[in-house]
Amino acid sequence: MTYILSADIGGTTCKLGIFDEKLDIVEKWEIATNKAGEGILENISDSFNVHLKKHDITLSDVLGMGIGVPGPIDFDNGIVHGAVNLNWTGKIEVRKIMQQYFDGPIYVDNDANVAALGEKFKGGGQNESDVVCITLGTGVGGGIVSNDELVHGHNGSGAEIGHFVVDHEKRFRCNCGMKGCLETVASATGVINLVHYYYSNMSVKSSIHDLITTKNVSAKDVFDAAKIGDEFSLFIIDKVANYIAYAASIMSVMSNPKYIIIGGGVSKAGDILIEYIKEHYEKMTFKPAKEDTEIVVASLGNDAGIIGAAGLIKTYVIDKENA
Amino acid sequence: MTYILSADIGGTTCKLGIFDEKLDIVEKWEIATNKAGEGILENISDSFNVHLKKHDITLSDVLGMGIGVPGPIDFDNGIVHGAVNLNWTGKIEVRKIMQQYFDGPIYVDNDANVAALGEKFKGGGQNESDVVCITLGTGVGGGIVSNDELVHGHNGSGAEIGHFVVDHEKRFRCNCGMKGCLETVASATGVINLVHYYYSNMSVKSSIHDLITTKNVSAKDVFDAAKIGDEFSLFIIDKVANYIAYAASIMSVMSNPKYIIIGGGVSKAGDILIEYIKEHYEKMTFKPAKEDTEIVVASLGNDAGIIGAAGLIKTYVIDKENA
Repeated sequence: MTYILSADIGGTTCKLGIFDEKLDIVEKWEIATNKAGEGILENISDSFNVHLKKHDITLSDVLGMGIGVPGPIDFDNGIVHGAVNLNWTGKIEVRKIMQQYFDGPIYVDNDANVAALGEKFKGGGQNESDVVCITLGTGVGGGIVSNDELVHGHNGSGAEIGHFVVDHEKRFRCNCGMKGCLETVASATGVINLVHYYYSNMSVKSSIHDLITTKNVSAKDVFDAAKIGDEFSLFIIDKVANYIAYAASIMSVMSNPKYIIIGGGVSKAGDILIEYIKEHYEKMTFKPAKEDTEIVVASLGNDAGIIGAAGLIKTYVIDKENA
Repeated sequence: MTYILSADIGGTTCKLGIFDEKLDIVEKWEIATNKAGEGILENISDSFNVHLKKHDITLSDVLGMGIGVPGPIDFDNGIVHGAVNLNWTGKIEVRKIMQQYFDGPIYVDNDANVAALGEKFKGGGQNESDVVCITLGTGVGGGIVSNDELVHGHNGSGAEIGHFVVDHEKRFRCNCGMKGCLETVASATGVINLVHYYYSNMSVKSSIHDLITTKNVSAKDVFDAAKIGDEFSLFIIDKVANYIAYAASIMSVMSNPKYIIIGGGVSKAGDILIEYIKEHYEKMTFKPAKEDTEIVVASLGNDAGIIGAAGLIKTYVIDKENA
């Protein structure tokens, strides 16, 4: 038997896993993220040693190591260009550092891409060759898989779905400095942007009126109110869904995915959001490009990252050898 | 030496070529397109035989055959689902038919994709792994190359750039039945749509006033007038450029190409259109995604198709073997 080592480094915890060649989990566990310099990388090696021993696996049985990092990546060289949540500044040569521990293939990608790859292999993507993943959280991120490979683009800015300009009125400023990005109208912050923009101009009284007027409302409040039929909250969710559907419809005429996977905290709003997205998508998408395309909810939760990091080795080592 | 056979089948003529492994042309020529059933396919085989003999090349020296067809393709199976301009209706199994003549690898793709692949290898794309091509003609088409492969998507609707919804006022109906597609505002027809939409509401008098009011104006008239400084024509070109730039900016956050190649008849409008596209693109694109990306004019003209059809063999046969 041969194995894959996988790490999904987050700002608080680092998820680790040992996988088999089919991306089935042998064991998964977590360690706290050490933010002193690149200390976490040594902690990861040490932890892999302990857990490999437990399973009587030696490094010679390991085909490769995949690592997800929350920051911009030079994928070809395994270098991270800063990671705010890890206190990493400047250029961190993750592959080179980890190669002191393991001299086989090491692939490093950003957290959004590895999560998308995880969903492609074992989640909503059902191992199709062409899928896209839109992750709606504090921000909006995602990943695009075309021809079974992640789309990184020429400088690693592929699948920057959050910066897809969809609000043509350009009402809210994005963290990137521009206006109109999907992130300004479809992230948790985006939902609140829309709430404050519309509420003062509408005659309807929302069941979360007090939370809104005292500026204490959260995206979750809006989704909870929608679930019990609050008209204003349903109006907001319809707006959010419309923007996501537009991005999805454009992705369909560009990469024509079989599955459009919606993940992240905002997607937990549940069926209402997804149903509204489907309705708008159906109306606005070029017919041949939407044929047999399905909009689905991400199914792996927090495991998407380690499964996808292991998926890097399946994609770039195992499947390349068998091609 | 080994060779590639290439055919770019058009409605009037069929361009044929013999290429070497580096995609350099050994010989290129044309035959008239026979529209009686699939007759053109036999004509192509016969013509290849004659020209191979001339160069003392036997079929055993041929690595593969690439074919471009103006219609929707099932790329995996080499099947064309109708081609209006060739009078092909229903399912035509091009690979299977051509395999009676040549039993090596045969790849079939649509004309827009092969032209994009040609520009990627030998034209504006300078052999970069990530490029997109936008072709502005009677309609708007294009191709996307990510990780050195054409993006076909799960049912072949990848890179349907003409049906990218960019006109949010949805003023003009597209041939696809929807409104707002890039094709309705950036093709030759799209230019005319915008001329008639704006001219009656503007106080400026254009130097092509008579052509406009008698509905005899062509896209070429507009570009020619712009070249000599006609204010209204420059206004229209700026509008067209803005829509193309928006599509280009979205493509940059999705597939992050090194080169965005503008081709087709409308691109011959020259420097004005390209300069306007660059200006708008620069303002509206997410900074990391536009870094080092260049907007360039297609450079291969009518040869893009045969070079790209030969490029299918380089991509899927030669380079796969050497990977």
